[in-house]
Amino acid sequence: MRAAPSPEEVRRHNLGTLLHHIHLRGPVSRAELAEGMGLNRSTIMALTSELTAAGVVREELPRSTGRRAGRPSLVVRPESTRVYVLAFQIGVHRLVAARVGLGGVILDRREATRPRGPFDPDELVGALASFTRQLVRRADPDAVCVGAGAAFSGMVRRSDGMVRYGPNIGAVDVSLGDMLSRRLGLGLTVAIANNANLGALAEHRRGVGVGCQDLLYLHADVGVGGGIIVGGRLLDGADGYGGEVGHMVVNPSGRRCGCGSRGCLEAEVGELALLAHAGREDAVAGLGGREAVRAVVDAADRGDSAAREALHRVGDWLGLGVANLVNVFNPEMVIFGGTLRDIYLGAAAQIRSRLATGSMAAPRERVRLRTAELGDDTTLVGAAELAFAEVLRDPLEVLARLRTGAAAGRRLPDRSESNV
Amino acid sequence: MRAAPSPEEVRRHNLGTLLHHIHLRGPVSRAELAEGMGLNRSTIMALTSELTAAGVVREELPRSTGRRAGRPSLVVRPESTRVYVLAFQIGVHRLVAARVGLGGVILDRREATRPRGPFDPDELVGALASFTRQLVRRADPDAVCVGAGAAFSGMVRRSDGMVRYGPNIGAVDVSLGDMLSRRLGLGLTVAIANNANLGALAEHRRGVGVGCQDLLYLHADVGVGGGIIVGGRLLDGADGYGGEVGHMVVNPSGRRCGCGSRGCLEAEVGELALLAHAGREDAVAGLGGREAVRAVVDAADRGDSAAREALHRVGDWLGLGVANLVNVFNPEMVIFGGTLRDIYLGAAAQIRSRLATGSMAAPRERVRLRTAELGDDTTLVGAAELAFAEVLRDPLEVLARLRTGAAAGRRLPDRSESNV
Repeated sequence: MRAAPSPEEVRRHNLGTLLHHIHLRGPVSRAELAEGMGLNRSTIMALTSELTAAGVVREELPRSTGRRAGRPSLVVRPESTRVYVLAFQIGVHRLVAARVGLGGVILDRREATRPRGPFDPDELVGALASFTRQLVRRADPDAVCVGAGAAFSGMVRRSDGMVRYGPNIGAVDVSLGDMLSRRLGLGLTVAIANNANLGALAEHRRGVGVGCQDLLYLHADVGVGGGIIVGGRLLDGADGYGGEVGHMVVNPSGRRCGCGSRGCLEAEVGELALLAHAGREDAVAGLGGREAVRAVVDAADRGDSAAREALHRVGDWLGLGVANLVNVFNPEMVIFGGTLRDIYLGAAAQIRSRLATGSMAAPRERVRLRTAELGDDTTLVGAAELAFAEVLRDPLEVLARLRTGAAAGRRLPDRSESNV
Repeated sequence: MRAAPSPEEVRRHNLGTLLHHIHLRGPVSRAELAEGMGLNRSTIMALTSELTAAGVVREELPRSTGRRAGRPSLVVRPESTRVYVLAFQIGVHRLVAARVGLGGVILDRREATRPRGPFDPDELVGALASFTRQLVRRADPDAVCVGAGAAFSGMVRRSDGMVRYGPNIGAVDVSLGDMLSRRLGLGLTVAIANNANLGALAEHRRGVGVGCQDLLYLHADVGVGGGIIVGGRLLDGADGYGGEVGHMVVNPSGRRCGCGSRGCLEAEVGELALLAHAGREDAVAGLGGREAVRAVVDAADRGDSAAREALHRVGDWLGLGVANLVNVFNPEMVIFGGTLRDIYLGAAAQIRSRLATGSMAAPRERVRLRTAELGDDTTLVGAAELAFAEVLRDPLEVLARLRTGAAAGRRLPDRSESNV
């Protein structure tokens, strides 16, 4: 409960807010910025001039609108190729690294299938460092990397980015953020957070959830996670572990879960449950993956009765889980991402029917069920948003700091790279 | 995403923030206010002078501290008897009305047992209007009522205060806020919200949860409700129905619930479940109540095996529900209020044991389980906080408006009152 800010804090806040607008809404006229921020045009002009001088935005005449009369308002564009972040997606089966420009444009990317077997943090970090070198080398010579963020398929402590628990990926208590920060050698701290939380952020800012202040994002990789937006803000709890809806027990006499409990949502609707119900133990032995889930949904479509029955059972429990969450959160939207996207598309009727009987009328009446608009990149885009957070809070300070340390910051790491 | 405020908005914001400080922290020195708000002493002096002139606070020398040296900083006190709100608690069995002074002091109160039988909104509103007349008559002649709030045992739509659903109280789709506002005749809108949500707010601001930014408050009247604070703010969802953890299904093959579903937390741990398990159908027929719950807990204490078994079963399901919520919310604290306070005290070991096996280590490691510090007044105090919200946002504007309409505002309603 602090007092209102000082004039200097106001200026910095306004610079950050302006950049945030441009980052999220793309090229936008000064007139629209004035309207959106509730400031007059001369203030907007002063702020955009500062950001232009710092090289983060540029102003230009709008493309011809067909009308000739009057002087058109200048359009402010993010300098997407000059100001970028590094975003990483660390999934159970898949590893992605991308260079993402201001405005949320994916400029370049590298990806690999993650090797099966025990979790080896050195190998993981080595692979991401190798990707990073390739990505940074191809950036414009005058481009500046303003942050780095990673989406991890497990629980991450907010205070220090320590990976606490990733049952499906096999990690416990690894300082992955620190390791990555050191190994990239870019003079940047790599922010790291749970993948479903970042998926929620991405869909809220750039996907199907734009405009929704209260939404649930449910994500399955092998396990099932959740990211929850409450009043426009990400719910991440006291330590950053919030949103683990996959470990809400829905069936106390149900299947064993990797977390040690029984009948968790993850145990009843995760990939392993679907494949086991469908009698595809071969795929389970191979640890499944998106293709295995899609194969079951496709088989159900073609009338395969075991696949239909499996999808029906999983849809039933997923619907019950969603009903519980609708009662608890009264959201405007529930979004299905990762392999839950496929499961939702294959079992929507089942899920909706269970939602209708299991939730109360008042919190359910306005809820919409949707699939992730950003598709397979949802959590990657969320990692980029996490990486942009600092520069959007105080753009000039962050840029000044990075440019001072630019020589060191650009130096590529010396250590020999691991094989990807 | 608005720009920072104008100087006039800053002044109003600071006045509200200052009053908020004094309202929550009680008598406080100018020095502490300067420290807490991050403003210099001359700004604090200007702000307190405005609030003093408006009659909402007063400044005085602190009581002797035993030291003589130096000039002591003036202490700013809320004018609790001159600035008050009306707070109502509408429970299944109990009706309370109170006059609550700035600073959260309960100055005067009236209460009654609510008559059993079908829900009669006219009778309810009549009883509260009668209490209100008695309370207002005994206020100081120069006191001003700055708001009114009600805690209702059911779901309430935020946009217009419409009571949507109160299965245990028997209400569906009643404009209770409007009816109360008209009937009180004080020129005030009665704000109305769910009782457990207001309980969470009260414990967060004035109870055991002070200083916790993420907490769960679980409340049982006859049903079971929840109020959730996320990042210091109440989670009330898209329409105000958020927090209904009582209708999270924990046992899909369990007891029928009043909401139409099966195995909801409310159905497994509510008063009716406890009394049925304990073989006290006599109390169920009489619709239970706190005394009936206490009788079971006391009997269990004395070694009654049916009572112990009943408490054990209920504690087991309550522990599972809490485990689910700890996984989803990663709270710092879980608070048990209403009759769940008694149940927690009687079954703490059972609840803790189930929490330990059903939740994951990371979100559980810092969570504390506590009982509501404000006891039976938790939701009443929350209703008062709701009522104070407007005057704390913009004190001078609200006071000016109320004083202009003071003659009308003080007039007591003409209509004959219903029996209580």
